[in-house]
Amino acid sequence: MESPWDELTLAFSRTSMFPFFDIAHYLVSLMAMKRQPGAVTVAWKNPFSSWFTAMLHCFGGGILSCILLAEPPVRFLANNTNILLASSIWYIIFFCPCDLVCQAYSFLPVQLLAAGMKEVTRTWKIVGGVTHANSYYKNGWIVMIAIGWARGAGGTIITNFEQLIKGTWKPEADEWLKMSYPSKVTLLGSVMFTFQHTKHLAISKHNLMFFYTVFLVATKITMMLTETSTVSFAPFEDALGRMLFGCHQRFSPRVKKNETKSNGTGSSTSKPTADASDKLKKKHSKKTE
Amino acid sequence: MESPWDELTLAFSRTSMFPFFDIAHYLVSLMAMKRQPGAVTVAWKNPFSSWFTAMLHCFGGGILSCILLAEPPVRFLANNTNILLASSIWYIIFFCPCDLVCQAYSFLPVQLLAAGMKEVTRTWKIVGGVTHANSYYKNGWIVMIAIGWARGAGGTIITNFEQLIKGTWKPEADEWLKMSYPSKVTLLGSVMFTFQHTKHLAISKHNLMFFYTVFLVATKITMMLTETSTVSFAPFEDALGRMLFGCHQRFSPRVKKNETKSNGTGSSTSKPTADASDKLKKKHSKKTE
Amino acid sequence: MESPWDELTLAFSRTSMFPFFDIAHYLVSLMAMKRQPGAVTVAWKNPFSSWFTAMLHCFGGGILSCILLAEPPVRFLANNTNILLASSIWYIIFFCPCDLVCQAYSFLPVQLLAAGMKEVTRTWKIVGGVTHANSYYKNGWIVMIAIGWARGAGGTIITNFEQLIKGTWKPEADEWLKMSYPSKVTLLGSVMFTFQHTKHLAISKHNLMFFYTVFLVATKITMMLTETSTVSFAPFEDALGRMLFGCHQRFSPRVKKNETKSNGTGSSTSKPTADASDKLKKKHSKKTE
Repeated sequence: MESPWDELTLAFSRTSMFPFFDIAHYLVSLMAMKRQPGAVTVAWKNPFSSWFTAMLHCFGGGILSCILLAEPPVRFLANNTNILLASSIWYIIFFCPCDLVCQAYSFLPVQLLAAGMKEVTRTWKIVGGVTHANSYYKNGWIVMIAIGWARGAGGTIITNFEQLIKGTWKPEADEWLKMSYPSKVTLLGSVMFTFQHTKHLAISKHNLMFFYTVFLVATKITMMLTETSTVSFAPFEDALGRMLFGCHQRFSPRVKKNETKSNGTGSSTSKPTADASDKLKKKHSKKTE
Repeated sequence: MESPWDELTLAFSRTSMFPFFDIAHYLVSLMAMKRQPGAVTVAWKNPFSSWFTAMLHCFGGGILSCILLAEPPVRFLANNTNILLASSIWYIIFFCPCDLVCQAYSFLPVQLLAAGMKEVTRTWKIVGGVTHANSYYKNGWIVMIAIGWARGAGGTIITNFEQLIKGTWKPEADEWLKMSYPSKVTLLGSVMFTFQHTKHLAISKHNLMFFYTVFLVATKITMMLTETSTVSFAPFEDALGRMLFGCHQRFSPRVKKNETKSNGTGSSTSKPTADASDKLKKKHSKKTE
Repeated sequence: MESPWDELTLAFSRTSMFPFFDIAHYLVSLMAMKRQPGAVTVAWKNPFSSWFTAMLHCFGGGILSCILLAEPPVRFLANNTNILLASSIWYIIFFCPCDLVCQAYSFLPVQLLAAGMKEVTRTWKIVGGVTHANSYYKNGWIVMIAIGWARGAGGTIITNFEQLIKGTWKPEADEWLKMSYPSKVTLLGSVMFTFQHTKHLAISKHNLMFFYTVFLVATKITMMLTETSTVSFAPFEDALGRMLFGCHQRFSPRVKKNETKSNGTGSSTSKPTADASDKLKKKHSKKTE
């Protein structure tokens, strides 16, 4: 006999992402794509290339997960309904007369709603990835974490790679020292869901899905309202780092130049400067995962 | 009771590409590879590296199709006969005493014959790709178009990627705004054969193969005789673009600088200049797909 | 009734690589990784990124082999024991107090022992790759050579690719003219084991494994003691080159500039200069495969 709470979380975990949550995910991803320099010009000059990039933005996580598990990367193209939905949203975002969709999207409540719904899909992707990996490797908890993470936040890798191939993006060496907030939070979720799946975490899947989703949505909305691009994990990361790696450890991204310039002085003095420059960098490069 | 016409087209569709059409395809691809700067030097200094690049030129479309369908990319190496044939042609092109093969190839009738036969193989590759994709995804018409296209014209992606890895090619951002002629014509063929396969096009496969091949060969030979690198689809593209995307749409590649310089003036004034610069660029970069 | 010699080589061929030989392989690979510029800084700033790179260094050959055979590239993550072992070695190399491991590794006998044991694993990897490819393609001897080679020396491709993506490595065009010593020697081994597998070489597998391993270990130790980075195959390569490709052929890597500067004079005059500059380059870029 399930409690009302259990029934609520169970019903929540059985919600289908199609069509509304998927629409929100495509909308947010494609609005982020549209804000990239040159995206509109490409859409006018070569709609096919723009459409292809749009599909990578919408389905990138699933594509990466397929590549890692040696499944056909084109499999997402077989789901005609979702492709049609994503293509329609791409079309009306880029070609709607008078830019109506973008004007509507400029209202904060619309952005908050869409972003919140997108975060819900992140949970579903992580869970789907973990479950799918488990069907391949029964006790492969590292694989499960990797695939859950790839599905939840791997889209950026695919889109960055496409830009690298196209010559519109050149990776900076220290970009890889910084793990973005969506990346960290997805990794955390993937670890939790994997340990729940392997019965190392004493919580039911639907309850974990509920709590994790609430956490995601709450932090996302908070970040949008306060105009910060990240919730700082720095205290936890520093503590974990010191515990595992000793006092040299900095998890939080520090600009390499500052470290070099300070010439071995303690991190604390360089911290405010690095934080400020980090915040500036993050404001300028709003990538939505 | 089939008509003589049906018998003709049926017999045509059952022609085996091995060995003569395959030889033509390898010959044209490897002569194009030889014309790339530094290719001969590489062949002398590191024949293995040159041979590997040659195999990518000859089998690139199939490799890309395998990657997209999560089949072993090395599968082409299992076909010992074709590998031996392609390797022999690579060998005699690069190491034949007194460059006999290249001298023979410099005669226009030889080039026309080889190029025409190569275009025939394009049809077979598209059809093979569409059929193969259909065995994976029964109603996945987008997948079928993608795989047909990859097999027919995907080789350039593989060879460009190899050059990118080797550091001998850096993609220019606006290269992706331009779809090459072989790319466009292969996409068109892939769409037609997919719709024929899904019974949306009321024409038999062997008839479509015949007509499409005749179109390919005729346009290719015309382009070689008139020394243009493309048959202009611009009127159709512009019409299609206006219908789907409104009056902003330009399918035809325009040099980005001209668009910026003209500062919002109509495209027509910048068109002659862009066309001329396009022609110059295309003459210098003759890539054969 | 087997002779004592057969029993010896048979017992040798049945030796398990786990755990001691695997430890040696991880140790040598990760010490080479640590010597790369910036590796220690990355480990302190983003241990996760450093750990990921470490796993690519340890399992790169297997990953490449999986990619080529369309098997899940994440499969190596399912082997929890080996991952744990490699991760432990990474941890103690980068975070051991007072750098004890590195100090111990700085003794030449330790380096010789570890390098020798690592070369033993190369044989096992080649044999494993050839056998595995044969299960896919019964008579595909080219595939078998390719997979044996990928497993034995393919790790560098994976790690270079990762650095390319990260922007910490840019390929030079003429790097691909030079095949590194481990690459050449692995290709040789892969060819021999393939021909042994297809019964074209009249020697038993365990005998060939023994002789090839002795050759690898002996040449590796000789190179380390004499501080050269390669055993010169140049005489054999030149002879093979002349036989197959005529008198233009140079297999040995020559700096392109010298060839250009010497303006068509015989290779012999430029050879000492090229050799000296090669030796300088190789001393500076000690990559262990």
